[in-house]
Amino acid sequence: MRVLGIDPGSQNTGLGIIDEDRGEMQYVDCRTIKLAGRPMPIRLGMIYEGVGLMIDEYSPDVVSVEEVFFAKNPNSALVLGQARGGAICSAVTRKCEIVEYTALQIKQAVVGTGSAKKEQVQHMVRVILGLRFTPGSDEADALGAAICHIHTHQVQTRLKQA
Amino acid sequence: MRVLGIDPGSQNTGLGIIDEDRGEMQYVDCRTIKLAGRPMPIRLGMIYEGVGLMIDEYSPDVVSVEEVFFAKNPNSALVLGQARGGAICSAVTRKCEIVEYTALQIKQAVVGTGSAKKEQVQHMVRVILGLRFTPGSDEADALGAAICHIHTHQVQTRLKQA
Repeated sequence: MRVLGIDPGSQNTGLGIIDEDRGEMQYVDCRTIKLAGRPMPIRLGMIYEGVGLMIDEYSPDVVSVEEVFFAKNPNSALVLGQARGGAICSAVTRKCEIVEYTALQIKQAVVGTGSAKKEQVQHMVRVILGLRFTPGSDEADALGAAICHIHTHQVQTRLKQA
Repeated sequence: MRVLGIDPGSQNTGLGIIDEDRGEMQYVDCRTIKLAGRPMPIRLGMIYEGVGLMIDEYSPDVVSVEEVFFAKNPNSALVLGQARGGAICSAVTRKCEIVEYTALQIKQAVVGTGSAKKEQVQHMVRVILGLRFTPGSDEADALGAAICHIHTHQVQTRLKQA
């Protein structure tokens, strides 16, 4: 199973690809689409195209998107929603299966606690995947979304077998 | 000038096409993409495809999108943001020029007051365009976004000439 993880954002959108084969995870690629300082429609086009390039290059079986909840700021939520919309559109129009996990679920899967800080996520993603480099924060979150789906899928498969 | 107006929404997304020639507006087409009851990724795909079909069919010069501000509810803002993101992505990837107007600006352009109700917008869109039918609420808002851009463009042109 090949999973594309996405951490959608209006400043940076992180992307990461992980392969899973018989319980083993293998890092494939990650990148950040840098969006700051451009008009919003241009950013959305860049997200759509950037996600599309990654899908066309690696043909993932599943796309795992970080889901975010806001408690306070509706304007940030609207902006972030647009970025997520662009990313999901790109995956849907390429007929990919889409799954969504909350930031809490992703942190729990990667670090073991939902209150983990950015640096902890980056460190644990590096350890779990045996990387020789520390991924950027948005790339680590994207790889984390992919790891979270692989974990969830493994647990569900074991439950079905039991 | 041909304008595609869009009223993006997660339940219904309204679309409307208007031509403007030497100060005269001519209604061309309108439709509603009905989205209720489907998973969000499917809805986003339908918005992307539906907006794309309208652009491919009518080749608008400009796409005018209703911009919404929320005062209270971040979750609605996130959902609406995704719908807007899908619509704008579709226009951007087809190389369309995009303009945005607030619901307030659109109501002022169509009815003359920002506090206009839905029925007033539907009625005035019908009158302004000389329609033989009353457009649905989302279609009226979409046509209103197109009318608002045409008005704004006319005023700007006159200001440049003066």
